[in-house]
Amino acid sequence: MGYRFLKKLTKVDDAIALVSKHLTIELGSEEINFDESLGRVLAEDVISRVDIPPVNKSAVDGYAVKGVDLLSASRYSPLRLKVVDEVKIGERPSKGAQGAVKVATGSALPDGFDTVIPAEYVDLIEDDEIEVLRSFPIGDNVIQRGEDVKKGKVVLKRGRIMNPFDIGMLAQLKKTRVRVLEKLRIAILPTGSEMIEPGEGGDLYKTVDTNAYTLSALCRESWMEAHHINAVKDDLETLTQAIRSAIRNNHVLITTGGTSVGELDLVPEAVQRAESVKSMVRGIGIRPGRPTGVAVVDGRLVFMLSGFPTACIVGFIALVRPLLYKVINAPEPPKPIVRAILKSKVASSLGVASYVRVKVGRVGEELFAEPVRVMGSSSISSLTEANGFLIIPPESEGFDSGSEVQIHLYDSIQG
Amino acid sequence: MGYRFLKKLTKVDDAIALVSKHLTIELGSEEINFDESLGRVLAEDVISRVDIPPVNKSAVDGYAVKGVDLLSASRYSPLRLKVVDEVKIGERPSKGAQGAVKVATGSALPDGFDTVIPAEYVDLIEDDEIEVLRSFPIGDNVIQRGEDVKKGKVVLKRGRIMNPFDIGMLAQLKKTRVRVLEKLRIAILPTGSEMIEPGEGGDLYKTVDTNAYTLSALCRESWMEAHHINAVKDDLETLTQAIRSAIRNNHVLITTGGTSVGELDLVPEAVQRAESVKSMVRGIGIRPGRPTGVAVVDGRLVFMLSGFPTACIVGFIALVRPLLYKVINAPEPPKPIVRAILKSKVASSLGVASYVRVKVGRVGEELFAEPVRVMGSSSISSLTEANGFLIIPPESEGFDSGSEVQIHLYDSIQG
Repeated sequence: MGYRFLKKLTKVDDAIALVSKHLTIELGSEEINFDESLGRVLAEDVISRVDIPPVNKSAVDGYAVKGVDLLSASRYSPLRLKVVDEVKIGERPSKGAQGAVKVATGSALPDGFDTVIPAEYVDLIEDDEIEVLRSFPIGDNVIQRGEDVKKGKVVLKRGRIMNPFDIGMLAQLKKTRVRVLEKLRIAILPTGSEMIEPGEGGDLYKTVDTNAYTLSALCRESWMEAHHINAVKDDLETLTQAIRSAIRNNHVLITTGGTSVGELDLVPEAVQRAESVKSMVRGIGIRPGRPTGVAVVDGRLVFMLSGFPTACIVGFIALVRPLLYKVINAPEPPKPIVRAILKSKVASSLGVASYVRVKVGRVGEELFAEPVRVMGSSSISSLTEANGFLIIPPESEGFDSGSEVQIHLYDSIQG
Repeated sequence: MGYRFLKKLTKVDDAIALVSKHLTIELGSEEINFDESLGRVLAEDVISRVDIPPVNKSAVDGYAVKGVDLLSASRYSPLRLKVVDEVKIGERPSKGAQGAVKVATGSALPDGFDTVIPAEYVDLIEDDEIEVLRSFPIGDNVIQRGEDVKKGKVVLKRGRIMNPFDIGMLAQLKKTRVRVLEKLRIAILPTGSEMIEPGEGGDLYKTVDTNAYTLSALCRESWMEAHHINAVKDDLETLTQAIRSAIRNNHVLITTGGTSVGELDLVPEAVQRAESVKSMVRGIGIRPGRPTGVAVVDGRLVFMLSGFPTACIVGFIALVRPLLYKVINAPEPPKPIVRAILKSKVASSLGVASYVRVKVGRVGEELFAEPVRVMGSSSISSLTEANGFLIIPPESEGFDSGSEVQIHLYDSIQG
């Protein structure tokens, strides 16, 4: 029966759109130290409470003057000014000065001093007297207070994923605490009576769980965290209880295994028994990974990924990750994509997005992509040998050898 | 004097090549849990101690048989076989069976059973008897022991930066501990008497240190860690001591500030006094960031970055990060680069690589890059407003409006 059902595949974009409509996850927020906010989602607009720079500053090494004094200066009518003071970087200028004040790049200007003459345009007549042979527009070489950021400006918007420069901006604003969305609680539940942990003894007939570890690491790459739940066996009652408890305690549940078309196709049934299902899609147009499913259960996300490692990973990349970013309402970060010449023909079925593992290499200036020999969707070695995916879209039957294709790189190009 | 020196700029690639020759950092290694190895550098070849899969398995749901029994089967001479047993996934097959054995995808095959007939090619005559109307080649639908990974194979090479799939592979190999390079010890030392911390009170004339925080976050993005040293004031003796101590306790020291051409150009002098300098380059062909310097001191790396935030950041991206990857002897991970149409002309000087901050946006299918208004290299707001760098190479004087250019994205494209 599962078999028949899976013959009808839903396009991954349609599945994402369908599921998105029913999502009702509401994330709380928490206040954290600004320097721990990399990759977190802003839960507030960051508004500057100050002008940056907070005072007028010199943009060059030179001499600050009152611009009006300078207006008539020229080669024929040189202007001489007494150097009455010096303002070092970080110092507060003294008040009431007249004439010229020596400044460095970044020095604050004394009140009334609105123009800076660069050192190279000045002749030093005496230790404390300069001569200027040309005029400068009022305001020249001055960084105006608030020129970079005006007080009251929304500098970083709510919903932004914090990058390193944003953290520098928070430092600049002296905003040492920042409100961010709480982290998504993501649980990974491997299913299958045959599953053992990597640390367990040597029964050759059991299946080592690799998926929970790969998925956790993929989450970590996106600055998210997932935690493992111990594998449950193929028993409807046990499975139902594990799924119910996981849904209640997490925003997102990712199951692996038990979704294929055999007799042990229990996970979707257990999901339906566990809680009220708003929307369920089973059979996604991705290869590997066609048995993949996704449901919205009590407003939360439940993914049913294949137990086969590569199918599980493709399910995550094609379906899970985009939906995780939907939940936090932030755009997926940009990914490295390169153009390469395909070294051998690859075929795909219409209606299915095929994720072909390729090894991209460089010959001279040119990049070439070689499909990696694949032994089926259980082989994780195809992923460690490759460094990228060629994604063949559902409307294509594949590419000929010699075609220029786009590769989604996940590892560096050697040589 | 600094001024004259800096007129001669070294190309960034030349600086990297020059410095690389003198590096003698030798990193130790440590053994960690396999699931904590994301982004770490392998310090051992990972060799499979097992065949994967460890036994012959069925690739389909169906019936395992001895291939020789099948050779003569056809529509005219149907073969009938007793179904004597069933092997579930994860179970050890019993020995000595004859006839047919029911299997699922992933079930181990009993000894001597070398071929699997998919369920859809079989007619079930009785509960325990099947009929087959065609022959199958011996070995059909079987995943051979070791087909994915042969025992003894080097699966992951020393020097590799661990990605999520590599972690899955370690799980598969039941290799729960793995030897990786120790982390680089990177210290960040802000210099300048005017520096204050973001958390310190409101002196408008002081400069808030943003660089240490931005640089730390940039390191974290590369799965590296940097620690701050308290800012030191512009005093040669104090600076020399701080630098000496930092060099002795770290592999890499990054100073910020104090490298420009003013009178406070003390950092390079302090570096030279601190320890024996093998190689020093000052004045790098990058803009912003021309006063940037790098030295090899006692075989370790000392970077002298500008105190101006954007110049500091460009110094990190162009010079520091590539050299950090040289030290760990690993390729820089791939970065997202997109092609976009430039919306206004940008100019650059020959001999200098200019890092122009641009905002890339989408109009229909096309990407456009708009240079962000810049107020000088002190403005970190140009970086939070932009989402990428247009890097104008040293041999180019810039690009006209409408040119197709490559943009190094560091944040997502909105809209």
